[in-house]
Amino acid sequence: MNRRVVLRVLGVLLAAIGAAMLPAAVFALVDGSYDLPALLLSAGISLFTGLALVLGLRGKTDLGVRDGFAIVTFGWLGSAVFGALPYLLSGAVHGPVDALFESMSGFTTTGATVFSNVEALPRGLLFWRSTTHWLGGMGIVVLSVAILPALGVGGMQLFQAEVPGPTADRLSPRIQNTAKILWGVYVGLSALEVVLLMLGGMGAFDSVCHTFGTMATGGFSTKNASIGHYSSAYIQAVITVFMFLAGANFSLHYWLLKGRVKGYWKDEEFRFYSIVALAAIALLWLNLVLRMGENPLHGLQLASFQAVSILTTTGYGTADYLLWGFAAQILLLLLMFFGGCAGSTGGGMKHMRVLLLGKHGLRELRRLLHRHAVFRVKLSGRMVQDDVMMNVLGFFLLYVLLFAVGTLVVSALGLDLATAVGATAATLGNIGPGLGEVGPASTYSDVPAAAKGVLTVLMLLGRLELFTVLVVLTPMFWKRT
Amino acid sequence: MNRRVVLRVLGVLLAAIGAAMLPAAVFALVDGSYDLPALLLSAGISLFTGLALVLGLRGKTDLGVRDGFAIVTFGWLGSAVFGALPYLLSGAVHGPVDALFESMSGFTTTGATVFSNVEALPRGLLFWRSTTHWLGGMGIVVLSVAILPALGVGGMQLFQAEVPGPTADRLSPRIQNTAKILWGVYVGLSALEVVLLMLGGMGAFDSVCHTFGTMATGGFSTKNASIGHYSSAYIQAVITVFMFLAGANFSLHYWLLKGRVKGYWKDEEFRFYSIVALAAIALLWLNLVLRMGENPLHGLQLASFQAVSILTTTGYGTADYLLWGFAAQILLLLLMFFGGCAGSTGGGMKHMRVLLLGKHGLRELRRLLHRHAVFRVKLSGRMVQDDVMMNVLGFFLLYVLLFAVGTLVVSALGLDLATAVGATAATLGNIGPGLGEVGPASTYSDVPAAAKGVLTVLMLLGRLELFTVLVVLTPMFWKRT
Repeated sequence: MNRRVVLRVLGVLLAAIGAAMLPAAVFALVDGSYDLPALLLSAGISLFTGLALVLGLRGKTDLGVRDGFAIVTFGWLGSAVFGALPYLLSGAVHGPVDALFESMSGFTTTGATVFSNVEALPRGLLFWRSTTHWLGGMGIVVLSVAILPALGVGGMQLFQAEVPGPTADRLSPRIQNTAKILWGVYVGLSALEVVLLMLGGMGAFDSVCHTFGTMATGGFSTKNASIGHYSSAYIQAVITVFMFLAGANFSLHYWLLKGRVKGYWKDEEFRFYSIVALAAIALLWLNLVLRMGENPLHGLQLASFQAVSILTTTGYGTADYLLWGFAAQILLLLLMFFGGCAGSTGGGMKHMRVLLLGKHGLRELRRLLHRHAVFRVKLSGRMVQDDVMMNVLGFFLLYVLLFAVGTLVVSALGLDLATAVGATAATLGNIGPGLGEVGPASTYSDVPAAAKGVLTVLMLLGRLELFTVLVVLTPMFWKRT
Repeated sequence: MNRRVVLRVLGVLLAAIGAAMLPAAVFALVDGSYDLPALLLSAGISLFTGLALVLGLRGKTDLGVRDGFAIVTFGWLGSAVFGALPYLLSGAVHGPVDALFESMSGFTTTGATVFSNVEALPRGLLFWRSTTHWLGGMGIVVLSVAILPALGVGGMQLFQAEVPGPTADRLSPRIQNTAKILWGVYVGLSALEVVLLMLGGMGAFDSVCHTFGTMATGGFSTKNASIGHYSSAYIQAVITVFMFLAGANFSLHYWLLKGRVKGYWKDEEFRFYSIVALAAIALLWLNLVLRMGENPLHGLQLASFQAVSILTTTGYGTADYLLWGFAAQILLLLLMFFGGCAGSTGGGMKHMRVLLLGKHGLRELRRLLHRHAVFRVKLSGRMVQDDVMMNVLGFFLLYVLLFAVGTLVVSALGLDLATAVGATAATLGNIGPGLGEVGPASTYSDVPAAAKGVLTVLMLLGRLELFTVLVVLTPMFWKRT
């Protein structure tokens, strides 16, 4: 590993994080609120550390595969640590565990919060909190479409051919082109959502914050009742649509801009994603109307918002789904594993992987009957190589394993059964609200500190597609080559 | 598919089932109890149907792969249906759903029961109930070591070389040799356990019934408090040891008889199985002693019995683990997925598969760092081919999928969260007791009928290694070739 270069890149990142705290500081300044010194000090610390690393460590810029893993893992970790400073220094949280939890939740676009009364927070902190989502989402778009395929993580190699501006075997300057294009899409969609929300009567500040939470599939709100605060069907519909867009592959939105409208439907993952979303909405709607006696039209509004919010791993809420019965809870729990599409800001396992897993299961059944025939799995008409399938199966395996072990550990640390299951699925999948004590009407504030620590690690693991973090944890990674 | 031959084999099986009801009828006759007519009538119906099929359908005996799948699936289903007759005709159960549930639970060696007061049942029915376990266990030993490898199901191909009397590509008379050898081991161990239990002061009838439940890793008891009825540490220890033996590969016991004592330790799966069992005992013991304030020695007795009982998928109980806290419950839930070893009477995913899955996960991590190196997975020193690994990964995938869908469906049918999770894991893994309303101190009697039906299907799916049943459900299976 080329430590100098890795640290220098991390320096650039930290300086950017510091600069990104300044808009939040402006809100604090305008409001004259108590968080101003904390935001300015945090910005200063981050900028100083970042610039010191950048200026102190000049050298060649050639990056290898190992450097890629290190930059991604330590980049997210470093962002979360420095991003936690405003919460900690302002005294808005109970201590460093809570501050790191909130910051990691922001940068991983999870949306799980330790603040039980966000409306009491000053606008500076609220804006910083939403900014971490938006920055995290930006990072993820580039990570999943440009960086991970180059690192060979989790079936994302499949993408390489589809990315605007193909990536080479080594992390190369071409990533910058890809990044610029996708960020353009991300910024453009964000601007559009802000305008649409303001047209619906939402204030400018809340529109921007909720847009940050939507586009990053994060879920931090400025209201205690989340989107349920706004009774407007229009606002809920706008957010539903943008959550769905943010959970789709951003390359597809790029192709749309290039005039290739059919790109969406030609993409098998997008078709699958749409079908899963529609099926989930239909099941939740049936449950609401037939079992809970909900009005059909209002039931559709509730069902579509909740299904899309969980499926895309956003986690915004308009209702408390813990009151919808156990079947609805289990359905939503299962949706948490699907997550967004590959190349979106969504978490979870990704629809592409789920689809490939399904195809693999069918292939194995076929193979039993036709022993000597060769069955190939295809995706969007292209052949999926066996080693990619092995990688996807390995991802699934590790995901289920981490879910199982995570549930066991947090239950040993004091969470009850439903809470342990829900909290683990909701943090590993970067969703936010879970089940039991961490349901949509509650927060993570009462979770024991040790369990919060475990959940913080799960957020990072889930966000970086497991492999990226796990590789860095192997002794093999640190061996000199 | 050669329907005539398949039906003829099923005929032999049904006739055997009918004959196996006669010993139970003897107990009913001796006791003069109300179940006598039901047992005699059931035996008559089974014998008559079986003999009619055998005599009516003479033809060639050549069996293909499809015939194998059909015989195994319909053989178990047929046994469960005809084996349900004594419960149904005697009026001991509330209806056909309960009768089929109890019978399927017996033949699949699950041990989940609808009888909340087994001590009120006549000895005839109790003996038949335990007999279904023992017969099911016999079937499983041969199935997993001889038949499934030939059918290419779920990584069991790995076995082919180790089986005493190797099996050919087509189901052949050599299976009979394998069957005889393994049944010898099964009967021998059973006789030994009966003697050891009687030496501990257990009555002859109860010793035989509990031995049937142990060797089959079933779990039906003749006592309401299961093995907790016997306060003797000796009896609990004997059953713990025999549950462990029944959860190990029966081929290893055969090698022991042949004087190859080291066979156990040379077998990587057996080492893994032992380590998992010890780790589970240690964790449960720590939980009991440190958190529940249990006496260390009695805690060890409780922990080892419970860990081995669940790990081997037996399901006997000496305590109510729902009182041991949530972490203990989640640990036991995870153990339900491990199951026994391949070639044992245990259910679950099997330790061999879990071990291969772990090795695959590590290999995928290695591959990320060394892109062009080839890493091979080995088991007991032998190379595991990629198609076997794909098969094992496919099995894991389907297992998790069935668990998820099963949980969703039974919760929609009225089970609460913990009960749905526990009941699905406990029936799919052929364990018996689950969590919540179907914990070790309860029974399945209050589960809604529709959910009982789903759980009955899960027992069959889990017992026949998923693929065997799923293949028969595909349209492809029924196409003429």
